[in-house]
Amino acid sequence: MRRMVIDTDTGSDDAVALVMALRHPEVRVEAITVVAGNVHMRQGAQNALYTAELCGADVPVYEGLERPLMRPLETAQTIHGIDGMGDIGLSLEGRTPASGHAVDVLAELIHRYAGEIELVTLGPLSNLATALLRDPGLAGKVRACYVMGGTGQGPGNITPVGEYNFWADPEAARIVFDSGLPITMIGWDISWKYATFAPQDIAALRAIGTPLAEFCVDIQAVLDAWSRENTALEGFDLPDPIAMAVALDERVALDVRHLHVTVEDRSELCRGQSVVDHLRISGKTPNARVVLEADRTRFIEMLHRAVGERAPA
Amino acid sequence: MRRMVIDTDTGSDDAVALVMALRHPEVRVEAITVVAGNVHMRQGAQNALYTAELCGADVPVYEGLERPLMRPLETAQTIHGIDGMGDIGLSLEGRTPASGHAVDVLAELIHRYAGEIELVTLGPLSNLATALLRDPGLAGKVRACYVMGGTGQGPGNITPVGEYNFWADPEAARIVFDSGLPITMIGWDISWKYATFAPQDIAALRAIGTPLAEFCVDIQAVLDAWSRENTALEGFDLPDPIAMAVALDERVALDVRHLHVTVEDRSELCRGQSVVDHLRISGKTPNARVVLEADRTRFIEMLHRAVGERAPA
Amino acid sequence: MRRMVIDTDTGSDDAVALVMALRHPEVRVEAITVVAGNVHMRQGAQNALYTAELCGADVPVYEGLERPLMRPLETAQTIHGIDGMGDIGLSLEGRTPASGHAVDVLAELIHRYAGEIELVTLGPLSNLATALLRDPGLAGKVRACYVMGGTGQGPGNITPVGEYNFWADPEAARIVFDSGLPITMIGWDISWKYATFAPQDIAALRAIGTPLAEFCVDIQAVLDAWSRENTALEGFDLPDPIAMAVALDERVALDVRHLHVTVEDRSELCRGQSVVDHLRISGKTPNARVVLEADRTRFIEMLHRAVGERAPA
Amino acid sequence: MRRMVIDTDTGSDDAVALVMALRHPEVRVEAITVVAGNVHMRQGAQNALYTAELCGADVPVYEGLERPLMRPLETAQTIHGIDGMGDIGLSLEGRTPASGHAVDVLAELIHRYAGEIELVTLGPLSNLATALLRDPGLAGKVRACYVMGGTGQGPGNITPVGEYNFWADPEAARIVFDSGLPITMIGWDISWKYATFAPQDIAALRAIGTPLAEFCVDIQAVLDAWSRENTALEGFDLPDPIAMAVALDERVALDVRHLHVTVEDRSELCRGQSVVDHLRISGKTPNARVVLEADRTRFIEMLHRAVGERAPA
Ligand SMILES: [Ca+2]
Ligand SMILES: [Ca+2]
Ligand SMILES: [Ca+2]
Ligand SMILES: [Ca+2]
Repeated sequence: MRRMVIDTDTGSDDAVALVMALRHPEVRVEAITVVAGNVHMRQGAQNALYTAELCGADVPVYEGLERPLMRPLETAQTIHGIDGMGDIGLSLEGRTPASGHAVDVLAELIHRYAGEIELVTLGPLSNLATALLRDPGLAGKVRACYVMGGTGQGPGNITPVGEYNFWADPEAARIVFDSGLPITMIGWDISWKYATFAPQDIAALRAIGTPLAEFCVDIQAVLDAWSRENTALEGFDLPDPIAMAVALDERVALDVRHLHVTVEDRSELCRGQSVVDHLRISGKTPNARVVLEADRTRFIEMLHRAVGERAPA
Repeated sequence: MRRMVIDTDTGSDDAVALVMALRHPEVRVEAITVVAGNVHMRQGAQNALYTAELCGADVPVYEGLERPLMRPLETAQTIHGIDGMGDIGLSLEGRTPASGHAVDVLAELIHRYAGEIELVTLGPLSNLATALLRDPGLAGKVRACYVMGGTGQGPGNITPVGEYNFWADPEAARIVFDSGLPITMIGWDISWKYATFAPQDIAALRAIGTPLAEFCVDIQAVLDAWSRENTALEGFDLPDPIAMAVALDERVALDVRHLHVTVEDRSELCRGQSVVDHLRISGKTPNARVVLEADRTRFIEMLHRAVGERAPA
Repeated sequence: MRRMVIDTDTGSDDAVALVMALRHPEVRVEAITVVAGNVHMRQGAQNALYTAELCGADVPVYEGLERPLMRPLETAQTIHGIDGMGDIGLSLEGRTPASGHAVDVLAELIHRYAGEIELVTLGPLSNLATALLRDPGLAGKVRACYVMGGTGQGPGNITPVGEYNFWADPEAARIVFDSGLPITMIGWDISWKYATFAPQDIAALRAIGTPLAEFCVDIQAVLDAWSRENTALEGFDLPDPIAMAVALDERVALDVRHLHVTVEDRSELCRGQSVVDHLRISGKTPNARVVLEADRTRFIEMLHRAVGERAPA
Repeated sequence: MRRMVIDTDTGSDDAVALVMALRHPEVRVEAITVVAGNVHMRQGAQNALYTAELCGADVPVYEGLERPLMRPLETAQTIHGIDGMGDIGLSLEGRTPASGHAVDVLAELIHRYAGEIELVTLGPLSNLATALLRDPGLAGKVRACYVMGGTGQGPGNITPVGEYNFWADPEAARIVFDSGLPITMIGWDISWKYATFAPQDIAALRAIGTPLAEFCVDIQAVLDAWSRENTALEGFDLPDPIAMAVALDERVALDVRHLHVTVEDRSELCRGQSVVDHLRISGKTPNARVVLEADRTRFIEMLHRAVGERAPA
């Protein structure tokens, strides 16, 4: 079994990504660590606990940082709902997180399973960055680190050049990219290009008919309305699930380039921008594999399979 | 006759753009103003004077700023040659610029021909920015301002996100974009996508057989060698000529979007980046027409025509 | 006669400095150039015209830049009054400025009287910086440039480290300090240390009994109220008059050090801070004479003399 | 007994401060935590171990961060010696630090002795900042935090406005000052004003005649030479010992003001500057007690007593 650790600011797309991982037969999710981002950290933890419970998964959920390293928290509740899960009335409180701090758990698991852990980060990188500050040696002990954040190319989703996760905690993102971790970056461009759900896609997902399928659609209620109002996309897009799809099956990534990436943390204008050196003009050694093209069909199949009837592993 | 003013840091691609304008039958180039950039300002002025002479054009060439507003000058002589014209032994000295300062001339012409002047900027925007600082009202009196600089989308040519002209003087670029000028921006992306000259394109240009055709090819000697060494392009690309082509004939621009653009002038990492708000996410009013697609065939035809046998107007 | 040019954003302390210069028997004020700052530029020009008229001075007042180079204008009308002159009902409109632009006039006078002009700047440095951008050679033709702005040491008056004039247009300030001008800097510290007017000082000034004496007191009405409310000073302080005193008579400066000074123009936190290298730790060549101690008695005497009965020269 | 934890980048002045604390009869140093700064972290740990051994103190020394949070390490070995201890041939290797990571130990001790721990930081704030990122709640459980760093007023010792400890890790310093910790800041100004050792002061210290007295003088060999060469001071100054003196006996601080302090972490020019809001102009709530005047006599007496004959507690 592959050993995965998922760091998440559990909003409505993170939840779908969690379902995909928790239901994957070859993956053992050792821990879910929660960070502030889309919603406040404690809400995110409850959302992760709810999702795990729905999947029948016995996975510990650890609470982590309640704010970015050096900036005030700015949530994305307008986009994902006040509860981050579409405000559809789910009972998202009262579950008990595992005891221990996300930052410590990241370090402990990486040390315990040196060379084995596959990290998947779905939110701001505050937890991971703090673990790396405390122990830079972690970077060399991770098998792979899949990061949903930034943009491989093209515009951002919160400013003209900023994607939310990196924008929310640019210092953390820079620390992670400068750390030596074996990063695969799945930017927001991959989401809007390959993970947009138009009405017919939503219908197809719902048509699977399982509680998980309905859950994955229903919790996008606020996102769906917001997207119709504010974007030119045909529907909503789900960044975290397609990032998770790449992590679960690298064949989802059709074009991956080894490039140097760093993150803007000084300028307000370009705050959080992933500066990807496509032309290798900076002379800096590549430090990330950047996904530039993905296989939408395979992704959708994986998602459908994850919410289908197959019993949990 | 259309009235054009060209601001240039005359390197080897600027010279080709000058040829295109000076030979155009419907355009009267009222002045060429020179700025520091590819080469030192005085060399740029000599290069412009040489080019005008070769075209048999009677156009005044005015010297302007010798350095960016707030940064030391960093030329691009590695790319265009020490003399900016390919170091092929042209006699690029001793000609006399017109008397008057580029900054004043810009202002005078714009006032004299209010609503008529079409500006084309081919270098760092130091001259134009200074004129605008001195007299912000100029912005409302220009017919059109075609700016070669920045990138509409995609990477830069001097840093991962910076194009040379904006990078060289980011403060000037920001002043120009914030000024209210009716800007059409032709970024470096338009050049490498639509104005790359592979060996066969170069051969075709040279085959025209006129002195101007040979000039336009020969002065790219250093650029050609540099491009082979340092880029993945099939040949060299000529940013200024394709920007000039758009200015001369808007039909060269196949996709033009009205968007908000500003320029990063705080961060070193993203220095000079044109921040283009493709998704209108900033809520800021569009201030530039950004060319995102161009007609290579039409451009090449215009260039061939410009260096062909037709007598000057 | 010494030839002086005064650049001012004419608020209530500038007006007093103007009186001191215009009434000085050995100084000929060739021009007053006005810049946006304490008040909008046009108001500042009217205030300068009013003051000159009151002094019976025949000096041309030129309008200049209406905003800082790269920032929106933020006036200090809360401090100096909506009209900048204490809102005491003076008739501050309808006078006609001289024709010509402040930036051009600065350049023309400096060239015409090369080596003779003594500049005194009492506001943001936007006019002077623009003249220097257009013609860097001006710096070498000025006899002396007295700058009220920054702080030689100690806190700022608009942020913990920012003095208003430099804070209002930090880019202009940096351009001026990097220009090679022979600068004498009189920072805000000199004002609050040596130019504070406690009630008894105000009474003494008013007691002189001339219209000019009353004018110099009355126009501080808003400043006086504001200072009582917002500062720990015993009264209000008058930065521009003590800077002018140094310009008029260098003996007012008791401790002057030749140091390197530059101005912060990237950070918002330290915006406009004058970074004075007191310990010569930067290795940079001194570019300014920084006044660190002044002779309050001499200053007060000069002021009293200026508003006294003596007829204008 | 008071419980103290000392965080240090053990250079030659840190060592003297350690002696003062370790020899103080009413203080129990629970732990020394080491951070990169003056010297590399491992060297600093050895230096602390050596010093503790010399004091006959049984105190655990924990290794911590090997570099600043977001910047490369720039040591001060030119000033303190390659070994940080004056390069006088001390045997500064082979001792064994306590097991455990400085960041964890800080957190553990603060929790274990909630409300009791007095922190004294003598180096860059990387360890403490990381502990606070991981657990912001620590700030409320510390009894007092004495920080040697920044400047209360006046110039810096590494740039015109930057003091070394804050300059070396400005992000860490900002995190610490924004954390809510009950900080008492002893800036570099306190050192050069009240802790300079002229030749006669050095002679007086050495004259005490104990091995500790000689140690405290001898390890300043490189600092002494450097200071003669590079400063205008009459001797060398010892920042960490006077900061420690304030921590050990608040009466050493003669003027302490409760002010808002933050640290510049964006600008390179003002990197690491402690921005102290002396005039309470920012409207921000005071977050630090800033020492502005100290009692040199008391400090020197404390130092002499510490290295004197009295047996360790
Ligand atoms: Ca997420
Ligand atoms: Ca050019
Ligand atoms: Ca003023
Ligand atoms: Ca230290």
